[in-house]
Amino acid sequence: MANQDDQFKKVISHAKEYGYIFPSSEIYDGLSAVYDYAQNGVELKKNIREYWWKAMVQMHDNIVGIDASILMHPTTWKASGHVDAFNDPLIDNKDSKKRYRADVLVEDYVAKIEAKVEKEIAKAEKRFGDSFDKEQFVATNPRVVKYNEEAQAILKRLGQSLEKEDLVDVKALIEELGIADPETGSKNWTEVKQFNLMFGTKLGASAESAMDLYLRPETAQGIFVNFLNVQKTGRMKIPFGIAQTGKAFRNEIVARQFIFRMREFEQMEMQFFIKPGTQKEWYDYWKETRLKWHMSLGMGEENYRFHDHEKLAHYADAASDIEFRFPFGFKELEGIHSRTDFDLAQHEKFSNKKLQYFDPEENKSYVPYVLETSIGLDRMFLAVFSNSLVEEELENGSTRTVLKLPSVLAPTKVAILPLVKKDGLPEVAKEIFEDLKWDFNVTYDEKDAVGRRYRRQDAAGTPFCVTVDHDTLENNTVTIRHRDTMEQKRVKIEELRGIVAQEVDIRNWLLKTK
Amino acid sequence: MANQDDQFKKVISHAKEYGYIFPSSEIYDGLSAVYDYAQNGVELKKNIREYWWKAMVQMHDNIVGIDASILMHPTTWKASGHVDAFNDPLIDNKDSKKRYRADVLVEDYVAKIEAKVEKEIAKAEKRFGDSFDKEQFVATNPRVVKYNEEAQAILKRLGQSLEKEDLVDVKALIEELGIADPETGSKNWTEVKQFNLMFGTKLGASAESAMDLYLRPETAQGIFVNFLNVQKTGRMKIPFGIAQTGKAFRNEIVARQFIFRMREFEQMEMQFFIKPGTQKEWYDYWKETRLKWHMSLGMGEENYRFHDHEKLAHYADAASDIEFRFPFGFKELEGIHSRTDFDLAQHEKFSNKKLQYFDPEENKSYVPYVLETSIGLDRMFLAVFSNSLVEEELENGSTRTVLKLPSVLAPTKVAILPLVKKDGLPEVAKEIFEDLKWDFNVTYDEKDAVGRRYRRQDAAGTPFCVTVDHDTLENNTVTIRHRDTMEQKRVKIEELRGIVAQEVDIRNWLLKTK
Repeated sequence: MANQDDQFKKVISHAKEYGYIFPSSEIYDGLSAVYDYAQNGVELKKNIREYWWKAMVQMHDNIVGIDASILMHPTTWKASGHVDAFNDPLIDNKDSKKRYRADVLVEDYVAKIEAKVEKEIAKAEKRFGDSFDKEQFVATNPRVVKYNEEAQAILKRLGQSLEKEDLVDVKALIEELGIADPETGSKNWTEVKQFNLMFGTKLGASAESAMDLYLRPETAQGIFVNFLNVQKTGRMKIPFGIAQTGKAFRNEIVARQFIFRMREFEQMEMQFFIKPGTQKEWYDYWKETRLKWHMSLGMGEENYRFHDHEKLAHYADAASDIEFRFPFGFKELEGIHSRTDFDLAQHEKFSNKKLQYFDPEENKSYVPYVLETSIGLDRMFLAVFSNSLVEEELENGSTRTVLKLPSVLAPTKVAILPLVKKDGLPEVAKEIFEDLKWDFNVTYDEKDAVGRRYRRQDAAGTPFCVTVDHDTLENNTVTIRHRDTMEQKRVKIEELRGIVAQEVDIRNWLLKTK
Repeated sequence: MANQDDQFKKVISHAKEYGYIFPSSEIYDGLSAVYDYAQNGVELKKNIREYWWKAMVQMHDNIVGIDASILMHPTTWKASGHVDAFNDPLIDNKDSKKRYRADVLVEDYVAKIEAKVEKEIAKAEKRFGDSFDKEQFVATNPRVVKYNEEAQAILKRLGQSLEKEDLVDVKALIEELGIADPETGSKNWTEVKQFNLMFGTKLGASAESAMDLYLRPETAQGIFVNFLNVQKTGRMKIPFGIAQTGKAFRNEIVARQFIFRMREFEQMEMQFFIKPGTQKEWYDYWKETRLKWHMSLGMGEENYRFHDHEKLAHYADAASDIEFRFPFGFKELEGIHSRTDFDLAQHEKFSNKKLQYFDPEENKSYVPYVLETSIGLDRMFLAVFSNSLVEEELENGSTRTVLKLPSVLAPTKVAILPLVKKDGLPEVAKEIFEDLKWDFNVTYDEKDAVGRRYRRQDAAGTPFCVTVDHDTLENNTVTIRHRDTMEQKRVKIEELRGIVAQEVDIRNWLLKTK
């Protein structure tokens, strides 16, 4: 656990130091759970977005994109259920006036019990050494058994109360457990109330005519309300998909884990419209297709797993997460949801308009079913970034920090380095820079010893360093060094474009998603 | 005037019919001054954004990007002046309860006078025929002279009152002119009041801890607050630039002209940090550089002009617009502003933090000056789209509607069409589709006669149509037809990639910006 925390802290500080992510409005001491993408971060984010978009839209003749607005007609959110049901259960402490998520207070209480279990295990492990059988110990040690039973009982009751919306029992549970305000120790709690997570705003200036709006809490509804316009003007035939990337906003009370859960975040969603009854086959198809997309980046098969949902949201008849091994454990990276006709049927009801597709093969009209793939762009960024950051011990005993980003996603593809800042080497290096910049994001660096510049580019994630030295002046060759292997090869200047393109061109990576 | 209106209406309906722009939330009867980009629109918008980004960031070693959040710490907007001064003068009608922009009411009144002038001119032109001298008529006809003098006097008084913030006189002017509520005819007006254009929202759930936030009204401040973080982590040396694209929001009371002025819109801004005293040379440099970028798209030199500002905003010591000939006349497309050190100095003051650059050549620290280039992505979209939409009369007397988008920006580059839906032609066409889709956005269409498909692709803006016919089966050749010339050439299938790339590849277009 301590190790995980350390690794996560390294990720966060490396992201700042190397220009990937800054806290938002940092000169004003930041804005909680909101972050800015810095000069390298913006390129990594753009490259992830583009890799997704090309794989989904450009590669599929039956998937098109849209870019709907963040502000939508408010009835959209009545129809989708967000006005009535997109809530967190909150509780206030009467003394401290602090507000908490009631479920998180209980979960934190349970986490403390689990920490006790871990402590018992660690103690026993130390006592018994190599002969320690963890599984047996957990199953038989009376103290550990009691802790685990207690934890499970609490979580079960919490889950049942939340499902029944029995907020009185959630409060009762908090009081029975003697949970205190973590900041002040006070146990003087209010009732538990539901709090809507949507950010509100007002359109228009006049008191009479102002309209209450929401910042969209998900991009999906922008696709549903445009379904028929896209189908008709795009002459789409079922099955077809509509893809979208864009910002969404949730007024999270407890937002943590860096960019994993932010108040302002970006989604990459695709809604696939299908004939009712075919949802099972498309569910399987998209689970497999999306996993292949992730695998194509080469970040380790062992870092992914499916988590099929047993408890389903009200709109779904099947749902699965692709989970990724983040620095803090396996967590949801992408969701694949069989949403039935829930959303379109709701919009039919609230808009009084038909949202049906005429199927020429069936010779009848119906409300299509929907298969959704939904991935958080910021989470994907965190997955790629944290997985790529490694410290390597070198043969000479020193260590190097290297950001082994998949090269198709790396912000800068090539750094051009004159060995020394004289003898005409900078001039030649700049010529190479000017030549390659038409095809790739390239950088030029002449400051410090070349070894230090290599380390800097390693830590920034640049796949290639090209060094111009005195031999270059003689024979038009340079060395090209690869970030991951540190191997250097001497090549002709004119070969550079081809060598780099071979490794970074998106089409070569997309081929791996097939 | 009528002609302009007609053309503009055609633009709007074509944008919907061909999947470029839909009204937002249309099934709920839309949201005023908010629009969604449809399946072709999203690609055109992406391509414009990418063309700007590559020209600004990838081509310049001393310009980097960022992607700051929409939600920022609220003190940002105190410092920038938006909380106090980002206002419109509004007036309510007491009877109708409708709210209007006071300045727009007066301007509409003036527009009616100008319409009378146009009517007099039209009448006289009809009366005098070829011998009509418009300039002389306007200078001497007593009625026209009187109208024009009246219009100018009103506009002058309005401008002076607004500049002095003399809102009492703005109301007096409205009453003296006898301006009535355009919807009800009532002249029963309230006082004129300033109304802030920022959308507000609240962060956090508790009444005590909730923080009043704004949706950013411009992206520029996201760059200023990050200036020092980017400079330090990116090891940037002055002069250097930070570029950004992203959404901004303004609660416009009167939003009109389709996507020209929207409540939710996207900006593409670059702030160039320079040594104080060098602003004049950089101002000239960026005016020229940005105009070249526009010209590279080949939309007609005669459609651009500079408009240097005489009246400057409080933060600027020089400012110029690049204006474009929209369907409703020449209007601002991009602004080039010499912003001095106003913004950074304000943020120093409000954050109590130094935002200075240590200049190693000067051996001293200073607050840099800023040269800004700021373009509305949606406006650029409208410029490209409206300029490209033409109706051509063909030799046979029929007309065709063609969207002559610069091919680098076109959503789909190639349509693959089997001449008929049999004899194995669809299979070959699909093979070509599968081969080309790795490099370009390609579409496949087999429905209707090929002539109709050509027209459809012309109207959608697709630069190339590739037709597979019976000869293809014999000798592996196809016809390739160009949208603008309608010329068809017979070429080998293996030549297609090169022919298309030559015309659409972004690097060939970027070369024209040099």
